[in-house]
Amino acid sequence: MSEATEPIQLTDEQRLDWLRLIRSQNVGPRTFRALLNHFGGARAALEALPTLGRRGGASAPQICSRETAERESEACRKFGIALVALGEAHYPRRLQMIDDAPPLIAIRGNTAVLTMPLVAIVGSRNASAAGVKITERLTRGLCEAGFATASGLARGIDAAAHRASVATGTLAVLAGGQDHVYPPEHADLLDDILHTGLALTEMPLGWEPRARDFPRRNRLISGVSLGVVIVEAAKRSGSLITARLALEQGREVFAVPGSPLDPRAEGTNSLIKQGATPITEAEDVISVLRPIIGSDAPLREEEAEDEGKSQAEPAPDERARVVALLSPTPVSIDDLIRLSQTSPRIVRMVLLELEIAGRIERHGGGLVSLI
Amino acid sequence: MSEATEPIQLTDEQRLDWLRLIRSQNVGPRTFRALLNHFGGARAALEALPTLGRRGGASAPQICSRETAERESEACRKFGIALVALGEAHYPRRLQMIDDAPPLIAIRGNTAVLTMPLVAIVGSRNASAAGVKITERLTRGLCEAGFATASGLARGIDAAAHRASVATGTLAVLAGGQDHVYPPEHADLLDDILHTGLALTEMPLGWEPRARDFPRRNRLISGVSLGVVIVEAAKRSGSLITARLALEQGREVFAVPGSPLDPRAEGTNSLIKQGATPITEAEDVISVLRPIIGSDAPLREEEAEDEGKSQAEPAPDERARVVALLSPTPVSIDDLIRLSQTSPRIVRMVLLELEIAGRIERHGGGLVSLI
Repeated sequence: MSEATEPIQLTDEQRLDWLRLIRSQNVGPRTFRALLNHFGGARAALEALPTLGRRGGASAPQICSRETAERESEACRKFGIALVALGEAHYPRRLQMIDDAPPLIAIRGNTAVLTMPLVAIVGSRNASAAGVKITERLTRGLCEAGFATASGLARGIDAAAHRASVATGTLAVLAGGQDHVYPPEHADLLDDILHTGLALTEMPLGWEPRARDFPRRNRLISGVSLGVVIVEAAKRSGSLITARLALEQGREVFAVPGSPLDPRAEGTNSLIKQGATPITEAEDVISVLRPIIGSDAPLREEEAEDEGKSQAEPAPDERARVVALLSPTPVSIDDLIRLSQTSPRIVRMVLLELEIAGRIERHGGGLVSLI
Repeated sequence: MSEATEPIQLTDEQRLDWLRLIRSQNVGPRTFRALLNHFGGARAALEALPTLGRRGGASAPQICSRETAERESEACRKFGIALVALGEAHYPRRLQMIDDAPPLIAIRGNTAVLTMPLVAIVGSRNASAAGVKITERLTRGLCEAGFATASGLARGIDAAAHRASVATGTLAVLAGGQDHVYPPEHADLLDDILHTGLALTEMPLGWEPRARDFPRRNRLISGVSLGVVIVEAAKRSGSLITARLALEQGREVFAVPGSPLDPRAEGTNSLIKQGATPITEAEDVISVLRPIIGSDAPLREEEAEDEGKSQAEPAPDERARVVALLSPTPVSIDDLIRLSQTSPRIVRMVLLELEIAGRIERHGGGLVSLI
């Protein structure tokens, strides 16, 4: 893979710190990034967590212990799983660019697939025979053109896409840990996938996927891909969530049209009405994606911090001004800085405190809201 | 119908002259318009035809005799057919605005339908049961919203659209004369249509439609309508010609998506890929068309002639310069004026001569080519 920026390489110690930090309470991918930006490293951030939580108005957050992280790390090794950090060579290039990219992913299989351009192919679990046939035809066309596929290992369209690309390379993104394949009957399919492709997840070993983990996982399916093809989708379905996330991530969205009388086409027809590119054959996808292969922008520069990485405590009135501006309605950090008449550094620190205390949530586009 | 410009009303004598002129050899709708512009009236144009043809390098064109025109006019009266001139009250408002609007149309039935906004609904003759069902559903929705339909009385989608709107009003555009219904088994359907709707054609009584009359007719289906809905269409089909003509006329083009495995959806899916609006229900059409109802621009001003309507003969070298610039590749009249360094009046006169002599063809957008 030609890299615009040199990949980083964590030491074992750093990887353990990253793992502890992302597995700690109230630390999601966006908070992780903000903490790293502020404290300069995972170790310093871990040390700051108790203070941040207390100042944010909660009891100290549960911090993942070194022992727990070592156990996970060791179990991964035994299971043939690599924990790859954002920015490392085996971290999917395009996934790095999304807003809430997981700091660490657990991957297993053949990393060769990461050197290929990826297209996500997703759709209804309850697929029709026609839907499966279209999926196979599209997938074969894409594979012949040198693309690999990404999907969610679900029944129906997902499985058809994986199967049709298992010879050339496909990436299965899991909603649970690497040891919790869902649905269980796709364990054999996953074994096949791993010869030429990968299984990828941000969840720890032992994590059984819950309903809400699937939409969260869907952002990774679109995140690793140049574009997302939705083959069949009913009105309200997970595939439409993937399409929305793909749009937010600036990914191309393709949808296969269907008859207005076919309920399985309601979702895709609706996407096309909203501007998704209608496709009926692989060439329709290829002609759009080929020009953007390799055009990945380098990782965006981290925001320049205006001063030292100190743990300087905001004054009580500064904190109060920021807190008073927050509500369950998401507001931009830029607006908070402007309206609170407080320095960006202080506002960001207050937000970190509130996050670690579990009182606010970060959204895409620099928005935050009270939980 | 609220009219931006007052309708004209021809005298019987004028109508006969218009009929003779449009039924004369080498006079199509565009040439008719150019002749009327130049000579100020159909009578003067008829008188000029022999001279124009001779100067254009052919023997005198066959001019429709007064007797022939009177016979057609009389037969129409007996048949309950009105010959309506472009600009008259019962000439479809939007049809006036197309480049090659027929100077005279023969209509029969109930003119009330002309006060309603029209949507064309067309598609494959070899329609599927699903296609017919979708057509019925769309048509009913459009009728409930106050629209009338226009179509070509063909088997399949056309007939389904007419049938579903026969109670509220539908317009059948024929490729032959009013006495040549095609296909013959739709004679009863046409009788039903005439109670609330109209049959319209530009062809004379007695004209049996030939293959090439159908694409020509299709421009009238889109021409009378605000937009064209294509329900099912194979790869190369007449409906796609209607879609292209509709685009050229600035009409909205709507297409019903279908499965990539369905050959009857190849044409409509291809239209959607090219930018036609994908629709699955009447509301998709209505929401686009409602805002443009009644927005019909007034008839465009006829080009101002730079001087008298004289029959001033171009000098031989002027004619030769214009002729030398022509080829079977269409060229714009503006370019001819510029490149021949001849006055616009002279260039237009030379073109009229060549048209009447049957040596050139006029296309849309002010283009002409040698035949």
